[in-house]
Amino acid sequence: MFKLIKKDRDTQARLGKMTTSHGEVDTPNFMPVGTVGSVKTLTPDEIKSADTQMLLANAYHLFLRPGAEVIKQAGGLHNFMNWSGPILTDSGGYQVFSLAQLCKIKDDGVEFKSHIDGSSFFFTPESILEFQQVLGSDIMMVLDECVPYPSQHDYVKRSLKLTTDWARRSRHRFLRCLEDTGSQQSDRNNGPITTQGRQYLFGIVQGGMYFDLRKEAVDQLIEIGFDGYALGGLSVGEPRELMYDIVESTIPMLPDNKTHYLMGVGTIIDIFESVERGVDIFDCVVPTRNGRNGVAFTATGKMQIRNARFKNDNTPIDRECVCACCKGYARSYLHHLFKANEILGLRLLSLHNITFYAKLMQNIRQAIKEDRFLEFKKEFLGNYNT
Amino acid sequence: MFKLIKKDRDTQARLGKMTTSHGEVDTPNFMPVGTVGSVKTLTPDEIKSADTQMLLANAYHLFLRPGAEVIKQAGGLHNFMNWSGPILTDSGGYQVFSLAQLCKIKDDGVEFKSHIDGSSFFFTPESILEFQQVLGSDIMMVLDECVPYPSQHDYVKRSLKLTTDWARRSRHRFLRCLEDTGSQQSDRNNGPITTQGRQYLFGIVQGGMYFDLRKEAVDQLIEIGFDGYALGGLSVGEPRELMYDIVESTIPMLPDNKTHYLMGVGTIIDIFESVERGVDIFDCVVPTRNGRNGVAFTATGKMQIRNARFKNDNTPIDRECVCACCKGYARSYLHHLFKANEILGLRLLSLHNITFYAKLMQNIRQAIKEDRFLEFKKEFLGNYNT
Repeated sequence: MFKLIKKDRDTQARLGKMTTSHGEVDTPNFMPVGTVGSVKTLTPDEIKSADTQMLLANAYHLFLRPGAEVIKQAGGLHNFMNWSGPILTDSGGYQVFSLAQLCKIKDDGVEFKSHIDGSSFFFTPESILEFQQVLGSDIMMVLDECVPYPSQHDYVKRSLKLTTDWARRSRHRFLRCLEDTGSQQSDRNNGPITTQGRQYLFGIVQGGMYFDLRKEAVDQLIEIGFDGYALGGLSVGEPRELMYDIVESTIPMLPDNKTHYLMGVGTIIDIFESVERGVDIFDCVVPTRNGRNGVAFTATGKMQIRNARFKNDNTPIDRECVCACCKGYARSYLHHLFKANEILGLRLLSLHNITFYAKLMQNIRQAIKEDRFLEFKKEFLGNYNT
Repeated sequence: MFKLIKKDRDTQARLGKMTTSHGEVDTPNFMPVGTVGSVKTLTPDEIKSADTQMLLANAYHLFLRPGAEVIKQAGGLHNFMNWSGPILTDSGGYQVFSLAQLCKIKDDGVEFKSHIDGSSFFFTPESILEFQQVLGSDIMMVLDECVPYPSQHDYVKRSLKLTTDWARRSRHRFLRCLEDTGSQQSDRNNGPITTQGRQYLFGIVQGGMYFDLRKEAVDQLIEIGFDGYALGGLSVGEPRELMYDIVESTIPMLPDNKTHYLMGVGTIIDIFESVERGVDIFDCVVPTRNGRNGVAFTATGKMQIRNARFKNDNTPIDRECVCACCKGYARSYLHHLFKANEILGLRLLSLHNITFYAKLMQNIRQAIKEDRFLEFKKEFLGNYNT
């Protein structure tokens, strides 16, 4: 499902293409986050107008609300939310450990109480995979334990053993789906095909901030075999340089012909640094959450639209930007909308920000294509006030 | 600016057309409310897609925030909010008396403290007219005192004297604008022409629930002479039948060749009853506020989308409706969005509701055209669970 098109001359940056049943995704690419089946404040049409190619949704949230039955009856998540492009669903591992209450890890899964109403649930690697099949996501993620930062080596080592075991069980269940659905023999090693099309399964490399454990994780996941590999447990509070070091040492161990996904990242600078180290896809709430907080991304850095200096500024946020926000509205109006707590303001900045991110990724791809990624990075970050 | 096209055979219902510098408005018509320069949650493109022809905005709110200077520098309200169709602006009289604090009525105007930050302001009939000229609204409203319900006859009589005096001063200031701007003599009795085009001024009939005072108000306003006449001080808590009686007795006293505007109304049934009595235009927050509260309008009545029975309902709100909400999303998804407090839900129901209102007005116009208004009213309300 992933095709490596070209490597940058000077760095580990890669140009690639993922092919899913719901369309192609050019890499490097960035997925806006539609936590509960909606990229906050935006319609799928708007998301598409921003040149977004793929979304992320959260299995944990969707499992709790609206639940499997509702989405099943709606014909899967694509139908339910009216998004016809590719969707990647996070397994819920990260959410269980960060949001849920009274989370108890057991060998066969994780017990937790819902952050919404306190009711109890038990996720197993198999159950969360089956739920992602109901969602019909193009890319499913295995259940993992995302260890906090900092964690002791022996704790992370024990956790990794469990995560690897869960990964093996996920892959096993993934292949067995095939038999259940009576798919053709030729698809035997490629996973299930649902009414939503073929689904893929990615493994998640854990191992905390320990290089030896990251290597162990990679070796084991490759042995099991996945359609793509994600780096999890990063951007969890560690120093930025440490994250880059982990990415830099881990990515080269992954197969060249599979997608490299850095989960939960990130900021503009993190994206540049990680693309340079060989990462293909990203997801983060940064563009949408910032938009709702009145922060717009521009070529010169972030802009807080509530700032008094925009009160009478009748220029758009970005003259070059083609989004409906920049084409139709001046900073003065956006400033007013945020001052007056009007929802339209949240919408317009969210739309601008995901357009900005999609355009950035497009420019990064073009730069890799032309072997000038480092040049583009230097030029962009030179103008961008982090 | 108003052309009476036809009267219904059986009732006082009228078919007409208003012509403004920003486009034509077929009457009867309904204006969604864009209180602070945004129809809550929606873009102008969406409002237009709903077949909305004209918006209302509030001078009181816009005066306080963002204020005259910002809108002046943005080139008027149309430019500021990116809406190219007609706009009617309320004078702020109603808001001063309902929202502001420590409101003191004086002969020459009204002193009040802002509901936002408590700072003091003084509105005069002239100052609020001048502010509406800065806004560049197509239809401006005079400053009036909106008396509460119930009020004693002698209080309403004294209030009416003031309101009439303010109306006279407003008209005087309106005509003087002409001289200020050096417009042609031929426009002398037609008011000012700004960069936004010609503006019109409507008078407001007050008089509480007293028929004699309503008559007095009408007589005086007609003597002063306005481009259109509004009924104010209704839908302020009085019994519904009393409002209909006031409308029924007041409208026939107004000139046939001028717009009849019932301010702040209303519900579906109020619109039918008032159109039947000769009202041409309406404004109300009902469709948008209901939308944000999870209530969708349908041919059979209002629907609370949070209701559990919609959890698995994979049909649209209204199969006949052409809005983006009904074309793209099922009730199950909308139910989920409201349960999960997603802003997209507020947007989609607001859009559906203003589409529903615009379609209703279109059907009312068609019925009047075909001399079957009463038939249509009976049929519609027969299906509609009020």
